[in-house]
This record gives sequence, C-alpha cells and structure tokens, in this order.
Amino acid sequence: MDIALIGIGKIAVDQHVPAIAASSDWELAATVSRAGTVDGVDAYTDFDVLLAERPEIRVISLCLPPVPRFEYASKALKAGRHVMLEKPPGATLSECHALEAMAKAKGVSLYATWHSREADKVAAAKDWLSDKTLKSFRVTWKEDVRRWHPGQDWIFEAGGLGVFDPGINALSIVTKILPDAIHLTASTLLFPQNRQAPIAAELKFFHPGGADVSAVFDFRQEGEQTWAIEAVCEEGTMLLTHGGAQMFVDGVAQGATETGLHGEYPRLYANMAALVRAGGIDMDLSPMRHVADAFLLGRRETVVPFEF
Amino acid sequence: MDIALIGIGKIAVDQHVPAIAASSDWELAATVSRAGTVDGVDAYTDFDVLLAERPEIRVISLCLPPVPRFEYASKALKAGRHVMLEKPPGATLSECHALEAMAKAKGVSLYATWHSREADKVAAAKDWLSDKTLKSFRVTWKEDVRRWHPGQDWIFEAGGLGVFDPGINALSIVTKILPDAIHLTASTLLFPQNRQAPIAAELKFFHPGGADVSAVFDFRQEGEQTWAIEAVCEEGTMLLTHGGAQMFVDGVAQGATETGLHGEYPRLYANMAALVRAGGIDMDLSPMRHVADAFLLGRRETVVPFEF
Repeated sequence: MDIALIGIGKIAVDQHVPAIAASSDWELAATVSRAGTVDGVDAYTDFDVLLAERPEIRVISLCLPPVPRFEYASKALKAGRHVMLEKPPGATLSECHALEAMAKAKGVSLYATWHSREADKVAAAKDWLSDKTLKSFRVTWKEDVRRWHPGQDWIFEAGGLGVFDPGINALSIVTKILPDAIHLTASTLLFPQNRQAPIAAELKFFHPGGADVSAVFDFRQEGEQTWAIEAVCEEGTMLLTHGGAQMFVDGVAQGATETGLHGEYPRLYANMAALVRAGGIDMDLSPMRHVADAFLLGRRETVVPFEF
Repeated sequence: MDIALIGIGKIAVDQHVPAIAASSDWELAATVSRAGTVDGVDAYTDFDVLLAERPEIRVISLCLPPVPRFEYASKALKAGRHVMLEKPPGATLSECHALEAMAKAKGVSLYATWHSREADKVAAAKDWLSDKTLKSFRVTWKEDVRRWHPGQDWIFEAGGLGVFDPGINALSIVTKILPDAIHLTASTLLFPQNRQAPIAAELKFFHPGGADVSAVFDFRQEGEQTWAIEAVCEEGTMLLTHGGAQMFVDGVAQGATETGLHGEYPRLYANMAALVRAGGIDMDLSPMRHVADAFLLGRRETVVPFEF
C-alpha cells in the first residue's frame, strides 16, 4: 500500500523511514515537509496539494509535533484517508475525541500509536502479569533531557509535556501490561522556575486489588539512564528494563536480551497494515488521560531554573 | 423508587433534598453522612451497612466532594445499585472511565449530572444555535469566591479545581448548546502564590467553522456577578445570562425570565428516573475533559497570594 509521511524530522528519519522501507506492506510514495526530504521519494511542501494530486495514496502517517497534528489529521480524515499518529495523538484529549468522531463518520482507519508498547518484551510482561497477584508496581523513568532533547525548548513550553514526553511512553506500557485499570490519586510536578512544563514528577495510583502503584519521572538524570518497571507479585518479581526491551523474572533474563527501539516502529507499521485491511479505529487514549489527570491533580513545586 | 442520598452537606440540603421531596418519582429512603441528617429519614453513618441492610434501595445519589466519590460510587456499582453523581463526576478522568466500565459490567445505570445544563433557558439556547452560523462565542463566568465558597480552602488545593469549580458549569452548558465539537488551543491559568489551584483562567478554543470561541473564568469578581455566554451569529446575537436562567436574542428576553437554580435539580432527578427506567448510562465527560486539557496546555502565571 502506498503511504505518505508528513513531517520529516529526526524521528521520521531515524524510525519511520527505515520501518517503512523494511516492510513488505508499505511503499513510501511521498513526503510532506517544509525542509526535510527522503532520497528517491516525491517531496511535497504543501499537504493540501498532496491530498489533491495523489488520490491513490490512501494512508497518511503523521510525525509532526503534537500541536499542528490536529490540523493535518483532520484534513486527511476529511479527504477520506486512513491516518496513523505519532505519540501523543494530539495536544488535547478533546481534539483526539474529535478525530475519532471524524474517522468514524468517514469510515476510515485511525491509529493512535504508542511505540513503547511494541518494545520487545512488553507482550511477554503482559502475559506474565495476567495471572499474578500484584503487591507493588513501580515505574522509574529517568533520563537526561540534555542528551535526548538537546536545545529543544518547546518541550518545556506550555503543552510541551516536559518530563511527560518520555513519561507517557512509560504510561503506555503500564496501561498495556496491567490487567486492571488504575487511576491517579496524587501527583507532584516539579516546574523549573523559568519553564512552563515539569522537569520531574511523582505519581501515585489507585489499584483495584490494593497494590501500591507509583511512578517517578525525572529529566535530570545524568550518568546511567533508567527506563524500568518493577512488579512485585506474590508469585515473584518481574522487572522490565531498557524501556521494555529486556525482562527479568526473579533476576533471570527472559528470552534474548535486546536494547533500543529497532522492533518498535516495524511493529507499529505492521499493526497499521492490519488495521487498514480489517477496517477500524485503534485510539486508546488511556496514557494521555493519565497525563492530563496528573496535571489536573498535580501539586506544583518550583525548582531551580533549567537551561540546556 | 427508593433512593439514598450520600453526603448531607450544603448542596444536599439546598438542592437534592427539596428536589427529591417535590418529585413523584422518588422516595428518600435513607441518608449516609458523618454528621448530617434529614428529618424523618433513616440516617446511616456507614455506607457499607446501608448497602448490606437496605437491598430494596436500588438507587444511590452521591453529593460527596469529588475526591472520596470514587470509593463510594464503586462500592454502590459493585453492589448492583444505580448511581447518580454530582458534578464533577470524579477527581480524575481515568476513574470516571473505570466507573463507566463497572456500570456496564453490572448492567446498572450511571448518571454523571451537570446541573447547569438543566438551567431554564439552556434547551432553548441549544435550539436557537442549532441552525445559526457562529461568528464568535464568548463565555464570561466571574464570581466572588469569598461569597460563594467562604473559607473553603479545599477549592484551592491540588485537585480542588479552583475557578474551574464554577467554570466546569459553564463548560457543561457550552458542550451542550454548541452544535460542533470544540477543543482547547491555549489556556492561561493564574495561580495565587500561596495556592495550588487557579483563581482565574482564560481559554481559547478551535471551532470547526472558524468562529472565535473563548472563555474567561474569574473568582475575584466583587459587586455584580456574571455567568453569561454570548453567541454572535450571522443571523443575530444570543445572550444567555444568570447561569443559563435567562436568554436574550438581539436584546429581547426569550420566555419568562427566571433566576436561580430551582429548575435544575428537579430536572436532574427526572432525568435519573427516566434513565433507570430505560436502563443505560449517561456519562458525558466532555466538560471535565476541557478542564483537564486546560491544565495540560495551561501557561501558569503567579499572582498575589489569596486569603479568604
């Protein structure tokens, strides 16, 4: 199937283009970007022109930042195209609901992707937890914003999510692997004195079985980086590390150990191919809802100014 | 039908008890409250005891504050009771989704009430707007927090919503009367230096028809209080005032002019009676989603400390 990729920035070049190239489902037929291009692929700068001139391209993948995404997604849906959205699926929950209503009205597919859910050991972690009795569940997502988002001031602007930009990846895994629905009961958000988005957060959740469920997100982590989830159950302890790429049960590694994102985007594109073939919408907003709840309930504390 | 009222505070005494007493649908069979009681009605202090001892009471109305509401609502739903929730339906969006899933699983009715939607002229405003071309839409909700919430420090605590406690009433009307779905594009939240919830907010929305849609909420309004919505359309201007109790088209009052809440709660209880009879769930979270979006996108500004 022909697909067009909109927004040729770092994530597109690093992940989307190679995943599409390696897939037998997809042919990258065009790109739309102000400046970015992909060698050998028709490059547009105006999305309206692409939609008008290339009716044979039925699928649009958007890897723009969240704020302009709604405008592009709604144009694509109104033009009867299937749409795939990078995470988070929008800047607000309400616009995501509006997109879902548009896709339903047009009878096209809409996929809100969560790449971390496709990390190598996430499915195994979900399987393992499915018949266990949870006692405690701790998410630790600590990375160095200077290393992963160098100079990206937008991430600390209002709506930029701050530490929830990576934190929402953790929440996308949590909401996939936990058998029971959780909800936030308290959150503390640390805002640098000169910034509009938090640099660190501590979250506590209600769990229907009474387990102690919590998360810590921190953008100030120098040295070793941690993207880990530990689930202590009556039957043993499961540890998911490297953002879901490695899994340990009672200290024993499960399956081959991998690092990095290499499996995530190919799986997203395979999921999108299956969704378009079957017809339907895959728009799970639960990770984003937890983030919105964290801002809604959050106790704000001011910390020292942050400069890149 | 027998109904039990949980949480006998100011709103219960002022609105819920008289609305139930005036209705031919309902019989107030019991109350649960730490201290409050209603003359001539069985008073419990322990909700578990009520659920166990009074199986004939099939409907529970909760007028507790939002934070403890989930625990009571989930107990009632698990015990197979129909549940009616004061606004907002919970402290987080995620817990509201969890309640909806529980109600579906149990096959009982769940009603997230929005009392301002039942103000006298809201239905007429919705009708009027249904075939108009909107140019601008301005919500002005300005009241004196010292007058309406004297000494209620909880309203300025994290999760207390601050000025969004009344503001969500405005948003419940907006989401009912506007024919098109809107979503937030920017918000500015003013936090008093010594408080965890905003005392004022300015919101801007995207409208699919390109209308200029905005809202201002302010808790610092002394003198005249304003709860108004002005819709400027190509065909004329509609003004809804007094929280939806009065309506004007091009300056001309529509229908009898009323003030106050007297029609709102009787209509909520009539809606609940119809919902229980028909079976089903009425859980529109759109007003609360806009509030969560406003916190998520909000640019925070610090203003002078506030003391009651």
